[in-house]
Amino acid sequence: MKEDIFERRESKVRSYCRNFDTLFVRATGSEMTDADGKTYIDFLAGCSTLNYGHNDPDMKAALIEHIERDGVAHGLDMYTDAKAEWLKAFEQYILEPRGMDDYKIMMTGPTGTNAVEAAVKLARKVTGRTNVVAFTNGFHGMTMGALSLTGNAGKRRGAGTGSVGLTGTTHLPYDGAFGDDVDTLEQIEMMLDNPSSGVDAPAAFIFEPIQGEGGLNAASKEWMQGIARLAKKLGALLIVDDIQSGCGRSGKYFAFEEAGIEPDIITQAKSLSGMGLPFACVLLKKEHDIWKPAEHNGTFRGNNHAFVTAKVTLEKFWKDDTFQKQVREKAVILTEGLQKIADIIPGAKLKGRGMMQGVDVGTGDLASDICARAFEKGLIIETSGADDEVVKVLAPLTTPVEMFQKGLDILLDSAREAVSSNQMAAE
Amino acid sequence: MKEDIFERRESKVRSYCRNFDTLFVRATGSEMTDADGKTYIDFLAGCSTLNYGHNDPDMKAALIEHIERDGVAHGLDMYTDAKAEWLKAFEQYILEPRGMDDYKIMMTGPTGTNAVEAAVKLARKVTGRTNVVAFTNGFHGMTMGALSLTGNAGKRRGAGTGSVGLTGTTHLPYDGAFGDDVDTLEQIEMMLDNPSSGVDAPAAFIFEPIQGEGGLNAASKEWMQGIARLAKKLGALLIVDDIQSGCGRSGKYFAFEEAGIEPDIITQAKSLSGMGLPFACVLLKKEHDIWKPAEHNGTFRGNNHAFVTAKVTLEKFWKDDTFQKQVREKAVILTEGLQKIADIIPGAKLKGRGMMQGVDVGTGDLASDICARAFEKGLIIETSGADDEVVKVLAPLTTPVEMFQKGLDILLDSAREAVSSNQMAAE
Amino acid sequence: MKEDIFERRESKVRSYCRNFDTLFVRATGSEMTDADGKTYIDFLAGCSTLNYGHNDPDMKAALIEHIERDGVAHGLDMYTDAKAEWLKAFEQYILEPRGMDDYKIMMTGPTGTNAVEAAVKLARKVTGRTNVVAFTNGFHGMTMGALSLTGNAGKRRGAGTGSVGLTGTTHLPYDGAFGDDVDTLEQIEMMLDNPSSGVDAPAAFIFEPIQGEGGLNAASKEWMQGIARLAKKLGALLIVDDIQSGCGRSGKYFAFEEAGIEPDIITQAKSLSGMGLPFACVLLKKEHDIWKPAEHNGTFRGNNHAFVTAKVTLEKFWKDDTFQKQVREKAVILTEGLQKIADIIPGAKLKGRGMMQGVDVGTGDLASDICARAFEKGLIIETSGADDEVVKVLAPLTTPVEMFQKGLDILLDSAREAVSSNQMAAE
Amino acid sequence: MKEDIFERRESKVRSYCRNFDTLFVRATGSEMTDADGKTYIDFLAGCSTLNYGHNDPDMKAALIEHIERDGVAHGLDMYTDAKAEWLKAFEQYILEPRGMDDYKIMMTGPTGTNAVEAAVKLARKVTGRTNVVAFTNGFHGMTMGALSLTGNAGKRRGAGTGSVGLTGTTHLPYDGAFGDDVDTLEQIEMMLDNPSSGVDAPAAFIFEPIQGEGGLNAASKEWMQGIARLAKKLGALLIVDDIQSGCGRSGKYFAFEEAGIEPDIITQAKSLSGMGLPFACVLLKKEHDIWKPAEHNGTFRGNNHAFVTAKVTLEKFWKDDTFQKQVREKAVILTEGLQKIADIIPGAKLKGRGMMQGVDVGTGDLASDICARAFEKGLIIETSGADDEVVKVLAPLTTPVEMFQKGLDILLDSAREAVSSNQMAAE
Repeated sequence: MKEDIFERRESKVRSYCRNFDTLFVRATGSEMTDADGKTYIDFLAGCSTLNYGHNDPDMKAALIEHIERDGVAHGLDMYTDAKAEWLKAFEQYILEPRGMDDYKIMMTGPTGTNAVEAAVKLARKVTGRTNVVAFTNGFHGMTMGALSLTGNAGKRRGAGTGSVGLTGTTHLPYDGAFGDDVDTLEQIEMMLDNPSSGVDAPAAFIFEPIQGEGGLNAASKEWMQGIARLAKKLGALLIVDDIQSGCGRSGKYFAFEEAGIEPDIITQAKSLSGMGLPFACVLLKKEHDIWKPAEHNGTFRGNNHAFVTAKVTLEKFWKDDTFQKQVREKAVILTEGLQKIADIIPGAKLKGRGMMQGVDVGTGDLASDICARAFEKGLIIETSGADDEVVKVLAPLTTPVEMFQKGLDILLDSAREAVSSNQMAAE
Repeated sequence: MKEDIFERRESKVRSYCRNFDTLFVRATGSEMTDADGKTYIDFLAGCSTLNYGHNDPDMKAALIEHIERDGVAHGLDMYTDAKAEWLKAFEQYILEPRGMDDYKIMMTGPTGTNAVEAAVKLARKVTGRTNVVAFTNGFHGMTMGALSLTGNAGKRRGAGTGSVGLTGTTHLPYDGAFGDDVDTLEQIEMMLDNPSSGVDAPAAFIFEPIQGEGGLNAASKEWMQGIARLAKKLGALLIVDDIQSGCGRSGKYFAFEEAGIEPDIITQAKSLSGMGLPFACVLLKKEHDIWKPAEHNGTFRGNNHAFVTAKVTLEKFWKDDTFQKQVREKAVILTEGLQKIADIIPGAKLKGRGMMQGVDVGTGDLASDICARAFEKGLIIETSGADDEVVKVLAPLTTPVEMFQKGLDILLDSAREAVSSNQMAAE
Repeated sequence: MKEDIFERRESKVRSYCRNFDTLFVRATGSEMTDADGKTYIDFLAGCSTLNYGHNDPDMKAALIEHIERDGVAHGLDMYTDAKAEWLKAFEQYILEPRGMDDYKIMMTGPTGTNAVEAAVKLARKVTGRTNVVAFTNGFHGMTMGALSLTGNAGKRRGAGTGSVGLTGTTHLPYDGAFGDDVDTLEQIEMMLDNPSSGVDAPAAFIFEPIQGEGGLNAASKEWMQGIARLAKKLGALLIVDDIQSGCGRSGKYFAFEEAGIEPDIITQAKSLSGMGLPFACVLLKKEHDIWKPAEHNGTFRGNNHAFVTAKVTLEKFWKDDTFQKQVREKAVILTEGLQKIADIIPGAKLKGRGMMQGVDVGTGDLASDICARAFEKGLIIETSGADDEVVKVLAPLTTPVEMFQKGLDILLDSAREAVSSNQMAAE
Repeated sequence: MKEDIFERRESKVRSYCRNFDTLFVRATGSEMTDADGKTYIDFLAGCSTLNYGHNDPDMKAALIEHIERDGVAHGLDMYTDAKAEWLKAFEQYILEPRGMDDYKIMMTGPTGTNAVEAAVKLARKVTGRTNVVAFTNGFHGMTMGALSLTGNAGKRRGAGTGSVGLTGTTHLPYDGAFGDDVDTLEQIEMMLDNPSSGVDAPAAFIFEPIQGEGGLNAASKEWMQGIARLAKKLGALLIVDDIQSGCGRSGKYFAFEEAGIEPDIITQAKSLSGMGLPFACVLLKKEHDIWKPAEHNGTFRGNNHAFVTAKVTLEKFWKDDTFQKQVREKAVILTEGLQKIADIIPGAKLKGRGMMQGVDVGTGDLASDICARAFEKGLIIETSGADDEVVKVLAPLTTPVEMFQKGLDILLDSAREAVSSNQMAAE
């Protein structure tokens, strides 16, 4: 039922559609339905863009109401009622309860990479320095500024010969990058304290509390605190890229909350709108708000449709801690489910935390095989990691427990089959 | 009626809201209404994002229908019916009638800057070269790769100290940059033919057929043809950035159509979705489609809501040449209206072409004064140019003639008052 | 008589030895003698390094005396009597008579490229800016900082793929680059005055008063004055690279003297030591002397042997204006001699000024042919220019008139033969 | 007796003269004499440029003979007898005995930094890659390409705001950089094997076998072998910068000899000429000799005076292993002498190896105090290290044992006094 048109007209750069090679026509909650009427459980959730599931009925209703009454759809960064409502809700439900009164919000172009670019530009402006420290296996986006912070060699090669222009950054080892026995924080500090290390005084550190694309590596509380302390000591800004790990994915609104740190800048995108609409923003400490008007701008900053649905997410899920508790309970189920898979694969180990977990199965081939079998069985799931060796579960946080369990069961079956097939091939 | 929340929470980087300091709550066609019930004619149109006006009823209907039936809102770059429908319509109504069968379409992150980044990365991959030639007064976006191509010093300074990282580009004079008497094309060719010029062999040339932010400079047919010829001679790719000038703004679908050139890469965004929803894409010649899967990706690429409304634009406006003719007729009205303004301002001159025209009034102060007075009178309009010296008209192409004339009348009145006030101040 | 050892052991990067394929064993004044006893008139003079000829007897005597008495040969940048003596002589004979009391002298590594690197680093430190404007056909050296300012594509490619790292510079057209009818100064000023040109505010301008490698292009007095004025207006430093054109080559000590400008920084090397010993320095206005100790250093800065011979050059040639007058008289002879050559080559034209002149014969092939024939006849001479199209005369300034005339006669004969052979080949 | 002229005319960038604030007029062997007739033992030796002492009588004689007979002083890179003689001697005494027949020699500009620039450019050309891996505390020169490889923050700041342009390099931890317990080689390999580390595939690794400026850190045999193996594995070139550690300083001609590795490229300078004359070259494997003629050039490459004296060094010191043995014996004396100093300073530790050793006294203040006291007592000696915390002995290798011992005794006395004074100040 899939159409020729994609092969004929869409660039070879397309990717997810290759693994999930069917035509999707409908999606609700944690399920997607294709043109043949087959329904899939979605453990990818738009790479954590659909933390509240597909087409949440309250978001739908609010958006349709907005459209029907000719609410502003596009207004550049003009003042609109939709923007005001979202700002007020964000202040009330997110900033104030977390003691984050000294943050301001910058509407960037509605993509994560744009928020990262704005964050890095601001850090360079504020400090008058250039170098930004990023970390191994980090993923921050595909535009040149963000790509210079991204570790993945394949993505970097997309910039052309010699990774030209991916400059002004230093890549240091993330927590655990050299194994459990090596304290990378200590080495990073030695490197940066050494005036002859060749690593220039940084404008900023940027890290993901849990690395999504990089293999579901989760930084420890202590490591995050250490980087925060180090940034302050060195006069650098701390940027936390919470684009994939934020909006409740970790079990709290921000994935750095448990570390008790106060980033200078926070990037948000993906699940921010709640309904999958393009929306990104940067939170920045007021003291750093030295932007001149339009010094970073963009046509689609301040997507009004997204404001409307984003406001629903705040009122529906973040008024109290009920939702967070549910997420953390579901995370326990997830750990248990993944452990069962790890148990049948020699050397496998669990990765990540909260509802952002996976299992490192050792090789990209095995992980891909598992995911392909799962898709056959009605489960949408992807790999991550430097070698695509991690089977990654990014289910909507709202997935009903029964359906969540069903998905995990499919995954376990798929893993069993893949392992068995793998063994046969080896014999 | 405006709210404190913006001052309290929104970063100082916000800009348009400063000139149009009211709270917008509703928008239809070529009008926006604020919370006090005051209605404004919109001659800004989201900087050419709303070529078909606000909240077109057919787009609204299609989008609501899609949402109500739980059509996929966010699906990364998976195959969806909405994507297939738009691709087919784009092929049918845009590519085929223009003999552009050898183009493929790449869904980039849904911002113009992202499309530019993708275009430049691809040109560097294809040619194995680095240098990209951009032009004076060009504007291509605010992420590092696109910003390196953007001329505006204020925007460039947003990248921090010393414009660090804005590398790999050469800025050469656009058509007319040195006045009418100097053929910049000839000089560009001499520069690039000279093996000791210090300008490295380019991976690409990138230009806007009509420069939006740069002051409504329109390249002549001959100049565009010359750059195209030069690119071919030098083994460089030709990228046409049609983000602001495309989607009918020039009087044809693409603003380069009249020059009869075949760009290797075309960037599109702004009015692509028709309703102001974030959407961008890159058209590329099939021979250049050497991307590996996901070599340039992005969470919100392939915005399904935008596919739905974008398809409506094609069916409603591009099935035949009726719309284009209307646009060109309106462009005549625009020229006449602007000439009246130019007539009362010594040294003023008309800029641009099609429905992308304005008047250079000599100074940014006078242009700002005119726009501020116009806003008081119920007209939303902005300046552009290196010194903001151009009053720029970017009305929706669908603006009814009577309303269009009314807007031009307001503008003329505002200009008269500003000139008169200016003269009094000078006396 | 040439030895295998060169082919066996010396890298293919060697170059001049290819055109002058013999083993030189002795050199005095304006002549070099090879192992076969054949003597050549030297119209290359170490590319203007031997303005005072080979092995000047007074320099020889002073140097031998220094060596015999165990004078310091290498002392890093410690204080030595040789350094003191040279500094005093340079002050007395060069700075004071020219009203240049506010210049200080920085000993850089003993190569021209090192002086250029130091100059550019200082300009960036002083201004806090990055961009350095260099000019088409400029040659400033082969280390990365200097190479980024050098126009020649072949040289730039030596830096590897995509001219990586040759950043932070803008190449604009030199005087006459677009022909006699185009005032490049005017265009440069328009480019730099336009805040949307994409050319960042410069830290410095750097130019050669007469371009040696670039084809003996001589900037007019007015152009040099214009660039000086523009630099001041823009808050940029003016660097004059007088490495090849200085030390009397132009007819005055500095090639910019006739323009009456006061560069912020001047680079010197080549003929500075007089005897061909490695020596370079930077002259800088005292107000810019913000270096910290050793912020730019180098093992061989302050070559004491070179101080000894350099002092002789000052006392012997620069005590009064006798030498300068002789040089200017010889320059007239040179012009006449070259005109005779130009007269027999259709389209040929004279280039350069002072004792730095040549004739553009139209093609690199013809120029090479002329030089090869001249070498056969006992004249060492080279080409220059973007296409090696200029036959370049860089005779020692001390060449006796009779010998100078003899060299020019050989050149004219060679040109006649080459033209004739060329015509026969074409028939 | 020092002259005003230095203060009046020499740039503030001068440095060594500040610590050794007298006017030197004569130097022989391991001694320098100032204008007051005071003689100093030289434990600095031009930073390892005078491995064979000042004004070696045989070198003097050869050089004077060359000058007297009008031997070519400057010949660009033309073939001369002096060049041929040196090349043959270098082949006979250095390359052949070490089985290094597959190396060619490239004459670069006569400074170490120029040789490094050439090496890096070549590595990028050969591999088509950009990134060059350098190491913490490495020092490779002050021109932009070499400075990008240099660790020292102060030196890097010399390049101006934000270390602009110091791009295309990655700085990784040198052997021992994180203390004796951490195997940096292992971590470097993990970093480079990880396709998502963000460290691009390197064109080359460059290291000093013993870091001179960086604090006399000596790489172990195993570490050097590991880097060599890693380079090969990754398709990168191995560049050994033996500028300061070569020419016998380590106890062998090359400081990497004991590791048995075969670098792709070796840089040489400093003691190469033997007499302190500017001279540098690059040794490269024949397979990498892909240079086009003049693709890296320089006016003073192939300094003929230096060829003459350099040939003497080879014949006098490298015909057999007598000299090397003497150096290694003297190194034992050095270790013993330094140990005595370390014994009286709590926490002090010995650094380096061969005749390139020193003692880390904990702070730059103490090290400077020791050196200042030594100078008072007639010993020229300097500090090194990121914080100048190492007292560094770089005596001529030819220093007679008695004089060497005398110098060490002065140093011990100076250390005793400094420690004692330090303690009194603390009480």
